[in-house]
This record gives sequence, structure tokens and C-alpha cells, in this order.
Amino acid sequence: MKFSSKVQRCDYSPMRKFHPFAVAARAAGKKIYHLNIGQPDIATPPAAFAAVRDFALPVLEYAPSPGIPELIAAVAKYYRNNVGVALQEEDILITAGGSEALSITCNCILDDGDEIIIPEPFYPNYNTFVQAAGASIRPVDTTPHDGYRYADREKIEALINDHTRAIMLTNPGNPTGTVLAPAEMRMIADIAKEHGLFLVVDEVYREFVYGGEELSSMASFDDVAENTILIDSASKRFSACGARIGVLISRNKAFMQHALKFCQARLAVATLDQTAVVSMYDLPADYFLASREEYKRRRDVAYRKFKEIPGVVCECPGGAFYMMAKLPVDDTERFQEWLLTDFEDKGETMMFAPGAGFYATPGKGRDEIRIAYVLKEADLARAMDLLALGIQAYNARR
Amino acid sequence: MKFSSKVQRCDYSPMRKFHPFAVAARAAGKKIYHLNIGQPDIATPPAAFAAVRDFALPVLEYAPSPGIPELIAAVAKYYRNNVGVALQEEDILITAGGSEALSITCNCILDDGDEIIIPEPFYPNYNTFVQAAGASIRPVDTTPHDGYRYADREKIEALINDHTRAIMLTNPGNPTGTVLAPAEMRMIADIAKEHGLFLVVDEVYREFVYGGEELSSMASFDDVAENTILIDSASKRFSACGARIGVLISRNKAFMQHALKFCQARLAVATLDQTAVVSMYDLPADYFLASREEYKRRRDVAYRKFKEIPGVVCECPGGAFYMMAKLPVDDTERFQEWLLTDFEDKGETMMFAPGAGFYATPGKGRDEIRIAYVLKEADLARAMDLLALGIQAYNARR
Repeated sequence: MKFSSKVQRCDYSPMRKFHPFAVAARAAGKKIYHLNIGQPDIATPPAAFAAVRDFALPVLEYAPSPGIPELIAAVAKYYRNNVGVALQEEDILITAGGSEALSITCNCILDDGDEIIIPEPFYPNYNTFVQAAGASIRPVDTTPHDGYRYADREKIEALINDHTRAIMLTNPGNPTGTVLAPAEMRMIADIAKEHGLFLVVDEVYREFVYGGEELSSMASFDDVAENTILIDSASKRFSACGARIGVLISRNKAFMQHALKFCQARLAVATLDQTAVVSMYDLPADYFLASREEYKRRRDVAYRKFKEIPGVVCECPGGAFYMMAKLPVDDTERFQEWLLTDFEDKGETMMFAPGAGFYATPGKGRDEIRIAYVLKEADLARAMDLLALGIQAYNARR
Repeated sequence: MKFSSKVQRCDYSPMRKFHPFAVAARAAGKKIYHLNIGQPDIATPPAAFAAVRDFALPVLEYAPSPGIPELIAAVAKYYRNNVGVALQEEDILITAGGSEALSITCNCILDDGDEIIIPEPFYPNYNTFVQAAGASIRPVDTTPHDGYRYADREKIEALINDHTRAIMLTNPGNPTGTVLAPAEMRMIADIAKEHGLFLVVDEVYREFVYGGEELSSMASFDDVAENTILIDSASKRFSACGARIGVLISRNKAFMQHALKFCQARLAVATLDQTAVVSMYDLPADYFLASREEYKRRRDVAYRKFKEIPGVVCECPGGAFYMMAKLPVDDTERFQEWLLTDFEDKGETMMFAPGAGFYATPGKGRDEIRIAYVLKEADLARAMDLLALGIQAYNARR
């Protein structure tokens, strides 16, 4: 008996790799500040729980495969009112988190031997979805010195060949927080259009932009409506990661018809969770303002703390709730392990996500880390101080 | 831009194919009895809703990727007490329905060009999961005349070649309701063992056996623990299809480690739904007895009604809540469409799932149907009478 070549090419999540060391550290009495996982501590709107409490049907039945009509309508309304994009009902499929939307997309457009262009560092689970579809990632390289910007026409076009099927982006970016300017979005849309490529844009962090920008979407370019596939999710927008409600959006009717086959095969997405998310789409617009302000303050704390550490390279990111930085250490995986096994300050330590797992190119990102600024300001500041103390102690050892 | 070859090989669900005609029939004022989809009308245990109402955390967080520990423990306890199989925590992964367990399994064990042996007729979504993994189905043929029995060593072994990776079964069967005898289970386990094949057994209908048998599982054969992969689900067991909670079980540690990669990539399964299902695993054992009795009565009604229709070929199935039958009509897809567009009796008609979609072999199953006996006895009887009247009228037309 042998395992598939695709699963053998896949890897474990770099965010979860140090979990056993964390368990041991906690067992030894250490308190750990978690900047390694994008699990916000912001309360889920009570409306979600109320909707679930009020669910009054005696049988918890399958939802329709494309999603419950109320949620599809709520998503369409949000895009119309908040993003300025007009979608029809059939342009929207509800999925089990943004993750399933990504997985369905890869299975619809990628075959064995195909390539997809993705700027690196990128969200590591893209690897699994692309590999499971038999394809591989062609990374657009970036550097911490210019804030991981990737919107460079020449660089991107140089990667296109006969095997290229799509360009995939996260905007605002995870793990970098990099936000595309409108002209950059237009330029990338042009590349996709000129080369006949799908343009898969993961916009789950859309609300989290801190430069006063209007909310924007790649779906607003009508001339690339056939190319564009959006990944969206309720997880971050409403701090409801555990609801596992994502959205797959495209105005390419043939694509959506193919995607529906996978939605039918897995029958439905959880009924109660869809009901909960409908209620959150009814929240007043100032809900987003409040959470944006909160995250902006946290970003500012994290950035200031990074800049105070000698030798760190980090530009101030414009969005999402992640930051990537180059540290003055030899290997951030070794450093993370050491922080859990050998370091503490007043019984406390911290976790980040080591950078290498966010790169497709072997050897890259070894002295980089990603942090998620998802903790309250005081906790975040303490975690960053522990990072600074840790770097000092790590480099002073021996 | 082109779509993947795999999605082009996939098809829509045969259970959902006639949905547009059903919508039109309802709009025209017809009442439709649905025997086409396995959505039971039995109430979901109130404990599930109570557990969700009592969920008291302010943030709806990601669950751990393998599933919440309480649910994993509940599943292990159920296998120990009800099925007599000892499982360790790491033998169990919680999935988004049995569907995701199937999809993960196919991605772990199948590559482009591989083959998997499955008795036909089979659950049509197996097609999508196998195709998405790049592989193809080698069907074991059966006939309605002997109740779709497939446990024939010679027949199965004749299909094994260098590309064969696994044998996949649904036991009790969907769409046939066929239940393997203990000796048949042992024989199939032997084939898997002797030929070094994975044995994927979908046992989501385990509780629904009507011959007084003890609950059984392919997982009880210790000597094929490395070969065996179980698919399980809360959907049918607790009449909670909309919760989308499945289980992937194997004592093959390497397989489970690979499967965990996919679980990590999609982050987690819905938190509230896992919580709801934990509470249902605490139900007293007579819960299963009551629902088994109810389904047995329904099976007896459906079988009796089938036998009263001249020309129908159907054996009495031993389990699940499906029955497959050969009808005296030319084409059951055409007949289904006609039942929705041209037939009614006192303003009523009925739906089944046409047989062809359950076969891999082209042309097979055209005069067969699957029914799901998921309605109350009176409704079921009426639906079967409508089927009888429909056959008569359909064959008498022109």
C-alpha cells in the first residue's frame, strides 16, 4: 500500500508545527503569548449566538448545496452596499470556510503539471490546495526591505509559461499585511487579461485596511469578470473563525457551474453556522469601523516594538492583522523552539510563525517570522517585549 | 482559460438533477413526495440544540484541526461500547461530514491513473471524490435479481491489477440497502490483505440494520487494521444531516498523519456543530433502538408496496434507508421528468433518484431507481401508490 504522491508533497502547517513544544512549556508552568495563529480575541457579535439559539426547526436538515438563500442574499447585499460590486445569486457559493473555496477553485482550474503564480511569502495552506490538485506554485519573489511588495509587471510576466493557469493573491496580504494600491490591482488584472489567466484573489481581510482607503475588490473590474475568482470568509470579518463559513464568488458562469459539482458532492455547509452568519451581515456599518480602529492600534504597537529591536527589518504593513519581519537570528525555527524550551521571563514566553514555511523557494525566510497582532494591546506589547528579550538572550548564549 | 480535466469528468448529483422540474411542479400547485434524497424527517435529538444554546464562550474560535477533544473521546467511547472496537485518540479525525472524510481519503491514497474497486450501483458522490483525486472507479457488477449482492471473491479479484489501490464499500449499502454478512466482511478483508489494498468502508448507516444483527464494523478485524479506513458520520445516526460532522477513522498511523495535513490545511470543522454532536453521543442506547424500529417499519411498507407493482424487481434490503428496484419502464430519467411535468393524482406526485447516476458502467441502471424511505409511514405509502399509478399511466400513454 502506498500513499498518493500529492499528499507526500504536502506538509504540516508551520503555524502548528511547534504545538508539542508549546504543550510541554505550558505543562512546565510557562505562560505563552500566541502571536503564531490568526485567532482574534475580539468577541463574536452576540447576534450570531442569538440566531443559533432561536433556530426553531425540529430537524437539523441539509442546507441547499450552494448555501442557504438568506446568506447568499446577505453576501450580495454586502458587496453591493459596502464594496460597490453587483453580484447575482448564481455568482455566489457558500463554502466550509475560505479554505473550501480555495480547495474547490484549485480543483476546478488546475491539473497535474499546471502552474499557479503566487507572490511569496504566502499563506502556507495554498501549498496543500495546489499540490492536492496536482499543480505547483511559481513564486514571485519579494524582500522584507521593501515591505514584501510584489506588484511588478516584469517580474510577474517573466514567470508566465505554457503551464501557467492562474495568478493567486491575498489582498490585504497574509502573512505580510501588504495592501495593493488601486493602480497595482489594475495592472495585475491587465496581466491576467492579456495572458488569459484566472485571477484568484483571497480578500478575506478586506475590512482590515488602515490607510483610510475605501473597501475595494478585484471583482470591481468588469473587463476581467471572466478571469476573476474571489475567496471570501466570515471568519475574520466577524471574528467568527469557528463558524467555518466562506464564500466563493465569480461572474464566470462556467466556472461557477463546475464549482457547483464539488458543492453538490459534499452536499451542504453547516446549517446552524450559515444561519448565524446571516445575522452578522445585518450588523450596522460601524461594526467594521470599530474593529478596524482596534486592529490599527494593535498594528501600531507591534510595528513600534519591532522597530525598537536592533537589527529587525520590517516595513509598516497597510492591512490584514499580520506582519512579517526579518530578525537578527540565525534560524527562526531553532529560535522558536529555544523560546519554548530554554527561555522565559517571569515565567512567560511567546510564539510566532517561523518564516520558512511561508516560502516555496527552499532556504528563503529562515531569518523571518510572521506575527498575528490578534491580542489586546497590553498582551501584544508584552509578547513583543518577550520577543526582544528572547532575541537578546538567544544571541548572547554560549 | 481552461478548466481542469478532473472537474470536466465530474458530474452533477443525480439526486439533485430534477430540482428545476420540481420547482416548476410546485409552482404549478403540485405536492411532491420526496423519496429522492436521504433527508430523514425524524427529529434531531433536542440535546443537540440545547448544547448549542448553552455555548457560553464570547469568541467563536477555531476548533483544533483534528476535532475537539470531547468529540474525539465520545466517538472512541461509542466504538468501544457499541461496536466493540478499541480506538486511540489519534485513530480519529473529525471531518466536515462523511463527505470530507471521503475526499481526504481519496487524496491520501489515489494518484492520477490509479484505480479503486467499488461495487455498482454506488453512492454517486464517490465519483467526484475519486475523479478529483485523478483516479477512476472499477465497478463490481451486481443485479437487482439477487439484491445487488457483490461479495464474490472471484468477481472482485478479477478486477485487481497494478493500478488498483483500494476497495471501497458502503455497508449497509447506499443506494441498495444491502448488508454484508460477517463471513462476507471477512472474505473482503482477506482480499484487501492478500493483495495489499486499502479497504475504505463507509459505515454511516451502521445503526440501520433490521435483521437483529449486532452492530458490526470492518474495523473489528485486527489483522487488516493497516488496510482499513472507516468513514463515519453523525448525519444519519442522529438525524442531524445539517450539522456536517463526519469522522475519519484508521489504525494505520501513517495514513492518519497524512490525513492530518489536509485537516490542518482547512484549519477546523465548525465548533458549534461539534459541540452539538458531543451531546448526542451521550444519548441512551435505546435512542438507536427506537429509530431502528421506525425505519424497519418504513422499509417493510416500501418493500410491500414495491412487490405489489407488477413487473418490479426488488429484493428486501437488510439495512440503511434506501432501496433500489428495477421498474417496468423504458427510462427512469424520462419517467421522473414525466412524473413532474405530466402526471398527478389529486394534485400530487413523487420523486425518486433515477438509477443510471449510481452506475459507472454506461447504460446500466436506466430502468432502475433508488428510493429513500425517510418519510412517515402514511406519506411513504402514498408516495409508493403514486409511483404505482405513475408507472401505469406512463406505460398506458400514447
